Amino acid sequence: MNRRNLLRGAGLVGAAAVVAACDSGPQPGAGGAPAIVSKQRQLKMVTSWPKNFPGLGTGAERLAKRIEALSGGSIKVKVYAAGELVGALGGFDAVSQGKADMYHAAEYYWQGKSPAFNFFAAVPMGMTASEMNAWVRFEGGQELWDELSGSFGIKPFLAGNTGVQMGGWFQKDINSLEDFQGLRIRMPGLGGEVLKRVGATPVTKQGGEIFQALSQGNIDATEWIGPWNDLAFGFHSIVKNYYYPGIHEPGTTLSLGLNKELWEDMTPQEQEIIRAASAAENDIMYSEFTAGNARALETLINDHGVKLKRFSDDILRELGAISATVLADAAKADAITARVYESFETARKSGIRWGAISEQAFAHARSLIEE
Amino acid sequence: MNRRNLLRGAGLVGAAAVVAACDSGPQPGAGGAPAIVSKQRQLKMVTSWPKNFPGLGTGAERLAKRIEALSGGSIKVKVYAAGELVGALGGFDAVSQGKADMYHAAEYYWQGKSPAFNFFAAVPMGMTASEMNAWVRFEGGQELWDELSGSFGIKPFLAGNTGVQMGGWFQKDINSLEDFQGLRIRMPGLGGEVLKRVGATPVTKQGGEIFQALSQGNIDATEWIGPWNDLAFGFHSIVKNYYYPGIHEPGTTLSLGLNKELWEDMTPQEQEIIRAASAAENDIMYSEFTAGNARALETLINDHGVKLKRFSDDILRELGAISATVLADAAKADAITARVYESFETARKSGIRWGAISEQAFAHARSLIEE
Repeated sequence: MNRRNLLRGAGLVGAAAVVAACDSGPQPGAGGAPAIVSKQRQLKMVTSWPKNFPGLGTGAERLAKRIEALSGGSIKVKVYAAGELVGALGGFDAVSQGKADMYHAAEYYWQGKSPAFNFFAAVPMGMTASEMNAWVRFEGGQELWDELSGSFGIKPFLAGNTGVQMGGWFQKDINSLEDFQGLRIRMPGLGGEVLKRVGATPVTKQGGEIFQALSQGNIDATEWIGPWNDLAFGFHSIVKNYYYPGIHEPGTTLSLGLNKELWEDMTPQEQEIIRAASAAENDIMYSEFTAGNARALETLINDHGVKLKRFSDDILRELGAISATVLADAAKADAITARVYESFETARKSGIRWGAISEQAFAHARSLIEE
Repeated sequence: MNRRNLLRGAGLVGAAAVVAACDSGPQPGAGGAPAIVSKQRQLKMVTSWPKNFPGLGTGAERLAKRIEALSGGSIKVKVYAAGELVGALGGFDAVSQGKADMYHAAEYYWQGKSPAFNFFAAVPMGMTASEMNAWVRFEGGQELWDELSGSFGIKPFLAGNTGVQMGGWFQKDINSLEDFQGLRIRMPGLGGEVLKRVGATPVTKQGGEIFQALSQGNIDATEWIGPWNDLAFGFHSIVKNYYYPGIHEPGTTLSLGLNKELWEDMTPQEQEIIRAASAAENDIMYSEFTAGNARALETLINDHGVKLKRFSDDILRELGAISATVLADAAKADAITARVYESFETARKSGIRWGAISEQAFAHARSLIEE
């Protein structure tokens, strides 16, 4: 079905509503002249998350509710958990084809379309949440993203961040690079590629499969997200070594992708509703992860005897060098990835210099009296 | 004038608009049944910033425009620069008394009402942007803030962040604590109090007065915000020593304060417009500062020969210890400050532990190959 005609049809609902309102005279709570949300829209949001999954799933629900509230109810958004309408990785195609109206997901799930998508979610040794936001909004990222996703009929927005993820849960100590040899570790995407190059065997598993694989010894290690989500999955009951920092996903960005025809059919007010709700969720989800991770970290250490361990500088240096190679290799895949990579790298280097003398230098100062 | 009656009067504009719409039949772009913005509101936003001041002033303008756009034009927000309706520090009283509808400012400007307000903007050795957001939204900060500001008839929201501010511009090198002795430095608020306790003479000056004071030798040093705003003020043409980190304002939070009667008169949709627009601006302003500071830092160093200098660990440790005392002293002022301080400190300590193994450990890892 032609989507635009479908939307025009839906528009009639709005016109009918005005007639109804007029029949019964002016309504309290109605009115407000210049421009109001013009149509009744029933939109479908598919997500990559299990129902009510803390942080990501609940964030997508909160975003949907905010869109509804901002529209005064004239936009309804029904949220589908992974598997309800399409699978966890099916959001992009569904929205591109008009089977769903929008997705909430992480862009690296679409890396099969182009490796460029990785850079709009997270890449090894990439950027932190605040650096990602600065790049996308004020250093050319959004324009490249619009071009990339636009070629698939999708309009993308920043819509959440997990912050820096943890290095993961390891049955055995990781004291040197050699300890990665033959290690079966759950780590998807480019992070997995980095570990592969130091001799590990990266394994891809959906969240719900990890606990069993770890407890049955089918994998030796796993990363997931951070203390908040990891605590909920209970990995601490099997493994006590919790390594940091995670270099594979330093500020995982979540996104809202809208069907582009729908986006272009929207009034300026409706577009602003999508834009503002996404930006608000981008901020609120990161706040929730920051608070949740800080709290869960204490629970893991104080109540569950988890041992925090830090990867050595030698290991981190080597993983960093390999990460740089993995990204440069990915950039060769196609023309748009090369341009995204170049823009990303420029912003990243600039962000590193500023971060070193601001947040990190401050954190160092604070640590002198707090530790 | 009774504000609520004034608002009810304004409500009639909305009802009249519906009648007009019905007279001429259903309008394209009108309609949408369940609940729409219900009144024409003309709101006044007073700010603490000069007109179009980069980051803060432009952010307040952007926030006002977003509120208008989200309302489809039924809420109009006129922005007043500092001095146009009330002075830079007059926003709180103006909104409290109903002379203005909302302010955009930093809460430490109201510290004369209670020292508790400092904690909702920035305090020495306090919290970073992401920690502040986590505290206010998910660790009890907003509830205390609502109580504090509510007692003055104001409903407050997070609405921007500058990130970590710089240590400042110093004519002479600061190699030891003794070098602060007798130093006349522009530094307001609790940060100034910290420097006073190491023998400096803190001076309060509005932004526009600093350049002249520095160039005429009336002050020996100044802090302002960060590279982006400092570059615009031209301090580098007088002084070359640019010190970091700023420990006095580690994540200065800006806020939107609404007249509480107005807030309570708003429909759920209007309230959500204020809430979402503020959260969006909270995220976008911080992104803009991050990008702008990173860019300006390179300009200052590469084009203007500015020398970046780091305060020594000995200095930072001492400033940290004094900061702790200054905050503890401030907490004794009144009951609400004591409670805010306790909540703030709990969140801060928790944030420090999480930050150390996430963002900071990651930044360290990244620095091993980037420097």
